[in-house]
Amino acid sequence: MLRAGMIRKLASGLYTWLPSGLRVIQKVENIIREEINNAGAIEILMPVVQPLELWEKTGRSEKMGLELLRFTDRHTRSFILSPTAEEVVTNLIISVVNSYKQLPLNLYQIQIKFRDEVRPRFGVMRAREFTMMDAYSFDLDKKGLQQSYEAMHIAYCSAFDRIGLDYRIVLADTGAIGGSASHEFHVLANSGEDLIAFSTASGYSANVEMAEALTPADNPAEPTQEMTLIDTQNTKTIAELVKKFNLPIEKTIKTMFVKASDKSKGKFVALLIRGDHELNKIKAEKLPQIVNPLELATEEEIRTIVDAGLGSLGPVNLKMTFIADRSVAAMSDFCAGANIDDKHYFGINWGRDVQLGEVADIRNVVVGDPSPCGKGTLQLKRGIEIGHIFQLGTNYSEKMNVGILGPDGKNTILEMGCYGIGISRIVAAAVEQNHDKNGIIWPDSIAPFLVAILPMNMHKSHRVRDAAEKLYSDLKRAGIEVLLDDRKERSGVMFYDIELIGIPHIIVIGERSMNNGMFEYKHRRGSEKVSVVMENMVEYVKAKIT
Amino acid sequence: MLRAGMIRKLASGLYTWLPSGLRVIQKVENIIREEINNAGAIEILMPVVQPLELWEKTGRSEKMGLELLRFTDRHTRSFILSPTAEEVVTNLIISVVNSYKQLPLNLYQIQIKFRDEVRPRFGVMRAREFTMMDAYSFDLDKKGLQQSYEAMHIAYCSAFDRIGLDYRIVLADTGAIGGSASHEFHVLANSGEDLIAFSTASGYSANVEMAEALTPADNPAEPTQEMTLIDTQNTKTIAELVKKFNLPIEKTIKTMFVKASDKSKGKFVALLIRGDHELNKIKAEKLPQIVNPLELATEEEIRTIVDAGLGSLGPVNLKMTFIADRSVAAMSDFCAGANIDDKHYFGINWGRDVQLGEVADIRNVVVGDPSPCGKGTLQLKRGIEIGHIFQLGTNYSEKMNVGILGPDGKNTILEMGCYGIGISRIVAAAVEQNHDKNGIIWPDSIAPFLVAILPMNMHKSHRVRDAAEKLYSDLKRAGIEVLLDDRKERSGVMFYDIELIGIPHIIVIGERSMNNGMFEYKHRRGSEKVSVVMENMVEYVKAKIT
Repeated sequence: MLRAGMIRKLASGLYTWLPSGLRVIQKVENIIREEINNAGAIEILMPVVQPLELWEKTGRSEKMGLELLRFTDRHTRSFILSPTAEEVVTNLIISVVNSYKQLPLNLYQIQIKFRDEVRPRFGVMRAREFTMMDAYSFDLDKKGLQQSYEAMHIAYCSAFDRIGLDYRIVLADTGAIGGSASHEFHVLANSGEDLIAFSTASGYSANVEMAEALTPADNPAEPTQEMTLIDTQNTKTIAELVKKFNLPIEKTIKTMFVKASDKSKGKFVALLIRGDHELNKIKAEKLPQIVNPLELATEEEIRTIVDAGLGSLGPVNLKMTFIADRSVAAMSDFCAGANIDDKHYFGINWGRDVQLGEVADIRNVVVGDPSPCGKGTLQLKRGIEIGHIFQLGTNYSEKMNVGILGPDGKNTILEMGCYGIGISRIVAAAVEQNHDKNGIIWPDSIAPFLVAILPMNMHKSHRVRDAAEKLYSDLKRAGIEVLLDDRKERSGVMFYDIELIGIPHIIVIGERSMNNGMFEYKHRRGSEKVSVVMENMVEYVKAKIT
Repeated sequence: MLRAGMIRKLASGLYTWLPSGLRVIQKVENIIREEINNAGAIEILMPVVQPLELWEKTGRSEKMGLELLRFTDRHTRSFILSPTAEEVVTNLIISVVNSYKQLPLNLYQIQIKFRDEVRPRFGVMRAREFTMMDAYSFDLDKKGLQQSYEAMHIAYCSAFDRIGLDYRIVLADTGAIGGSASHEFHVLANSGEDLIAFSTASGYSANVEMAEALTPADNPAEPTQEMTLIDTQNTKTIAELVKKFNLPIEKTIKTMFVKASDKSKGKFVALLIRGDHELNKIKAEKLPQIVNPLELATEEEIRTIVDAGLGSLGPVNLKMTFIADRSVAAMSDFCAGANIDDKHYFGINWGRDVQLGEVADIRNVVVGDPSPCGKGTLQLKRGIEIGHIFQLGTNYSEKMNVGILGPDGKNTILEMGCYGIGISRIVAAAVEQNHDKNGIIWPDSIAPFLVAILPMNMHKSHRVRDAAEKLYSDLKRAGIEVLLDDRKERSGVMFYDIELIGIPHIIVIGERSMNNGMFEYKHRRGSEKVSVVMENMVEYVKAKIT
């Protein structure tokens, strides 16, 4: 996108949209606006600068941490730059809705957002300042919320279909915003930041954060080894251990100490994961025994409990609560740290050597895991999240006290939904899905221009110039967005540039073909040029546009 | 606007645009976008969050003071919220323009802006966060700049004409942004913040800040009084002095001590203004002898120079530089403080009692002053500034080092113009110009909806309901934006609300007129209802829309 002159970086995570990039942004905005309007939502525009006070009321100022950019104005009042607008819209609802007859209500905006990312990356994919569509629905009851949610689900699909995106709808975790149900819309791309789990045998798909790792069907095998204490000096990591002792990695476990919540007896809790698995923070944070957000114990804190460091922890002789992942509970003859520096136990078996305590799903799924839907196994693909829909329920409305007299005369706390689409990210995702080695290939729906006219040697041939200018104005009059390359460049340069920018329909005007009464047409995606009778070109192009 | 449900206040100077307000904003934006595009400018979108560093380069971070909102991000890097974008666009030009063949170039954006006003007031007229069109032109020479400036001048007129505004173009001061020539576009309104001077006999008009107060034609009259020291206890103000001694106010002068610049000998300079005049800060700040921005001496500082307080200062026996306004230089037999507490001199005359030093135009013009154009006298009216065009010249381009190899092979510093239109302010100004006691009367060009259908007792009469819904969809199909009031309200409430919101074309559907095959039409501006054959209503309304 940088190369194609769509954007220009101003500073870390801050981009200027140049003319062709902005045209794409505006087309995406308009498609989304139309579809969201069709879903019955109403457009408003809320300030980007918002009082911090509102964010403190819902506790989000704390939850969002440094991502929420704070500052004080000249009167030292505290404000934030809006990353979303749940608080402001809820506040608005309190002042504008005074009868249940005004409900359901779905308000949206297309507005600048700001998130102070630690490491802004992937260009506009994860910028700090970006354009987002954010909608907020208010209903009297769960059934209403369900309907509003469904309507937005459909609107998202219509919009993304029109934009020409190849996307997947996946189950998502509700994360920091909180709530009950949530779906994400992902464009599959190898450069994507998110990992999505799909079933090989059904339509099941979920964000890897959300996908359940099922309890293994088999019970642990019978022990075949004695438990032995082994000297494992210089093997601090699982990888080193596996290599040195020629162990199958599935026979090892990782032990992590994390801070306990006040619902736990001790100060720390241990989490056990199979050596080849990864801890899923979001799943772990749902355990009542540990603090949320999850905090790992420091080396120093670990040494207050056991006489061992990070690389030598394990469940045997451990005098604290531990929680084993489901797959750990199914292990036998396995190896773990001995809670003594440079020592591991080999041949551990549950029951015989150490009692299994609580078991929970706390790991990320991996390729080949059985699908939670019961059919097939899981495969993983990378995705770019372009949209998100949430059923917040009464989470915010309770905190902000958004109630209204219902038809029954009783105060009813409103059911809220929230919905986001990353406009600038869609543009980046569309480029990911529509490019070749020469540059971008825009779908007609969001191309900055539909047609490019490349006149050959226009500055030498009056005939070519006149024909190009006539065709340009004929196309414009037909309502088609057209670009005329009137630079004094060789045809190679013109083709190079136009293919880089990705204009889908290309018309070449040259003396030679004009001698036969023809212009040449080429689609950005194809390689073949087609000769078209000059007078028919407008109609020909019109028919090509989808 | 608050009453009509167009906006809602979130915090001081921060407003949410509600649906009908936002529709107007978007229409204004689109008209401006079209006209600015026609002027050959190209739309881009720059970030609202900008590095402070760029603003330090041009010295504007200091010049703008606290109005420029500053903050640091999580990495403690300094940023600002953009009030305009000269620095960013100039920075962009450096990176995208590499040949003089790419010039002239005029880039614009329609984007959120932020100014941390001390006292945000007049609703969205002077909000802190607001939407603005800002354009920046780059030319190789002064002649090019003049052409770009002219093109924008014309585009502004076309846009404001289409919006239906009654506006005046006035000469303006170039203020904090700097530069050579500048015009403001004002909508005349009694609630306006700006004062504009018009000639009674020519087309001359200028912001009062800018209008020159000519040197009076007559020399001072011959002295007729001796200079006398008078005890003036308890007369701290000119008003008190005039009243107590029955003095004509034109025979009094005000003396102000202000901080001197390093081009002056002393630490302070005195400014002399006739008692009935006001100091013009902008004119005074152009004096090389004083600091810019102007700073008044404190009472304490005054007492280090003379043995008198604020109410007793004057030119006689004053041992410091003073600068007299042109009208002061023409006075005779006048009264001023004696630089002794509670004493004034009466009957002062220049030359005889005190030597006249430097004379300058440092006051605001008043009604009746001769017009600077040489024809007629000045009258004053209040205006709302909705647009501004500046010829910046090489002011920024030099500081930011924006040069390019010109056709002559020499490095050429670009001539820059900048242009602003306050979108949200236009909406407020349009309301000012188009309202009556019942509410807003939108011009067709920017009405949130063109037509309102008011069905009488629709919830009781199926016939009325069917007719209303059919007309609604017929109008929609004809591409006309229409609002159907389907609330269960009495006709009085419906009329009240629709007149408040200001929809220009109103159609009333009721049983009685339907019995004669008629609907009723009324324009918001008129009082007469017209009966129109039901089948002809769509065509009738179409013809009414301008």
